[in-house]
Amino acid sequence: MAHIELDDGVPGLPALLAFRPETAGPLSALAEALLRGPSPLERGERELIAAYVSELNGCDFCASSHGACAAAQLPGGMSLVRQVHANLAVAPVSDKLRELLGIAAAVQRGGREVADEHIAAARAAGATDVEIHDTVLIAAAFCMYNRYVDGLGTSVPSDPDAYARMAERITVHGYAAGRG
Amino acid sequence: MAHIELDDGVPGLPALLAFRPETAGPLSALAEALLRGPSPLERGERELIAAYVSELNGCDFCASSHGACAAAQLPGGMSLVRQVHANLAVAPVSDKLRELLGIAAAVQRGGREVADEHIAAARAAGATDVEIHDTVLIAAAFCMYNRYVDGLGTSVPSDPDAYARMAERITVHGYAAGRG
Repeated sequence: MAHIELDDGVPGLPALLAFRPETAGPLSALAEALLRGPSPLERGERELIAAYVSELNGCDFCASSHGACAAAQLPGGMSLVRQVHANLAVAPVSDKLRELLGIAAAVQRGGREVADEHIAAARAAGATDVEIHDTVLIAAAFCMYNRYVDGLGTSVPSDPDAYARMAERITVHGYAAGRG
Repeated sequence: MAHIELDDGVPGLPALLAFRPETAGPLSALAEALLRGPSPLERGERELIAAYVSELNGCDFCASSHGACAAAQLPGGMSLVRQVHANLAVAPVSDKLRELLGIAAAVQRGGREVADEHIAAARAAGATDVEIHDTVLIAAAFCMYNRYVDGLGTSVPSDPDAYARMAERITVHGYAAGRG
């Protein structure tokens, strides 16, 4: 049961956006800018960073929903998402994406955990300043969304197909429209 | 030195907002809604929650700037901010604010760290659903801002008076206007 009175028919973040419309606007606009706005990183890559950080934070709702969004937009699909979660070191991603996911994992542990070595390795694999910036901010933002969703004890969908349906809606309409 | 090429004359978050205007808008709008928008919590109390979480995350820029904003808007001033950072259990705040700061500290450790006991204690001290919601979201958001600022290695002001000037500007003009 959630820690505050939410519409229990609505799982995860959407229940919180409905509870407090004053903060729903900026939170949805931020997700839209980070995950779908202009960036040198593909939308599927950005969703994968979001899903990976959410998995590391143990946030089931965000890991599943953004995992489904990544799977819907990457050629490797859900198998790739699972391999990244299981063992980043050997997952079939580009060297650049592997190093960026490594930076995301450092951010998940704490801002000061990002070392010059992480940045140098990402640059050596071809990452630009904007790609490094966007990776750090996406990882940091999911340390917020994950804590918001779990800190208020929101529910998770009982039907596992719900995530795929959510991903289908988001990849077409985005975060700002449906606020999901 | 910052991990990406920033204007080194500008410290902390403002340097990042200038680097990536696409995400600066939602990030500033979120800070404005959380810390200055309509809420049953006073602006000074919300800044204190932000400063406390930033201190727990070891983020010097955010702890100092939001500590200065809290001090400017609370009767206890900087002395109160220091007492909260030093020992929340005995700091001279209301029971309700102490319990809310306790929830914020749990969120800082992780979303799943917020237990039914934290919520029950806050309610027993008079906290409402909206106050609990706003506390959790402010704490979660500073787990983002702190990681963003430190994860990209931004600089801190060399002049300690810079924080008080920043706070003066923010308490008058807000976060969305000056993007600071």
